[in-house]
Amino acid sequence: VKIGVLGTGVVGTTIAAKLRELGHDVLIGSRSAGEDAVPFADAAAHGEVVFNCTGGMVSLEALGLAGAENLSGKVLVDVSNPLDFSKGRPPTLSVCNDDSVGEQIQRTFPDVHVVKTLNTVTAAVMVQPGLVPGRHTIFVCGNDTGAKAQAGELLQGFGWPADAILDLGDITAARGMEMYLTLWLRLYGATGTAVLNVEVRPGR
Amino acid sequence: VKIGVLGTGVVGTTIAAKLRELGHDVLIGSRSAGEDAVPFADAAAHGEVVFNCTGGMVSLEALGLAGAENLSGKVLVDVSNPLDFSKGRPPTLSVCNDDSVGEQIQRTFPDVHVVKTLNTVTAAVMVQPGLVPGRHTIFVCGNDTGAKAQAGELLQGFGWPADAILDLGDITAARGMEMYLTLWLRLYGATGTAVLNVEVRPGR
Repeated sequence: VKIGVLGTGVVGTTIAAKLRELGHDVLIGSRSAGEDAVPFADAAAHGEVVFNCTGGMVSLEALGLAGAENLSGKVLVDVSNPLDFSKGRPPTLSVCNDDSVGEQIQRTFPDVHVVKTLNTVTAAVMVQPGLVPGRHTIFVCGNDTGAKAQAGELLQGFGWPADAILDLGDITAARGMEMYLTLWLRLYGATGTAVLNVEVRPGR
Repeated sequence: VKIGVLGTGVVGTTIAAKLRELGHDVLIGSRSAGEDAVPFADAAAHGEVVFNCTGGMVSLEALGLAGAENLSGKVLVDVSNPLDFSKGRPPTLSVCNDDSVGEQIQRTFPDVHVVKTLNTVTAAVMVQPGLVPGRHTIFVCGNDTGAKAQAGELLQGFGWPADAILDLGDITAARGMEMYLTLWLRLYGATGTAVLNVEVRPGR
């Protein structure tokens, strides 16, 4: 599959490398094209599926540079978190509670099929879930069932078992998925490792 | 142990019943004393340990009625969540991101040893963790190590194994624990049951 990956940070490069390993035709997009990246717009135009791996605070701007016409009708896998380090550590979220980056993107690009996923684990775990032992959960949400199914296939390619993928419903579930980051940062602190995840377990 | 339980909702009555079953001497406090409850101040004065089981939006007011002099120097187990249903469903949080109810209580009553815990599971699971199969995690945070140890003993009395109790650090971790509720509500929707919890699993 032709895939555009927007963002050249750890998340973008990790996901792009895994997608290439799996045989996909990947272009990485950045604000300023360089040795390993093309402009956002070229990466978006190339992809049948586009991953947003930019920081949540700049995602709308980056997607604006990618161009609505290059994203129209496509599946956009949004991996971003709106972590704001401008007031120091721990970071706060630049949007939360009654809105989310996932929703902002969906509102701004209404004919794009936004699927929020993977933002609740560190980059290494995104593409190698076996780093965390046992079954553990990866969330997806979005308004389009077909888009979520397509994202789910990519997740399974990354090594996530089908029964580990939990569909939380429409894109408004991105609020909870992004707000979980505030807890995640404390889980990281308490366990001493970013290689961690949660298993959601319903009761009897 | 003499324990005051503030709040006569499902959480307060569930916790009070379990504490009595375990042999503790419990008084339940409410705004207007009734058949099964005494005024907040009497319940707080009675308790060597006090549970805050009032709604997070009214906790500061309820604790004000309980009286700083009746809480001074005591362990206050804060189970509240600041769920605001006034704008409809899903609820938003009345405080989040850079503050939390746990922190508000600690700031307002600086000589009380606030321990935040149990707010991330439904009332039935709080006192009967075995309703969810396998090992799963209950978070605690607070500024006082001794108070967290005392709360941990009560949690073990409720049936939480020692290795299921995860100390997230000081009271500022209450932000993440409360913000997780936004995700929890979607987990409830996706799994169809409120009897659920997460197991935090660090990687290799």
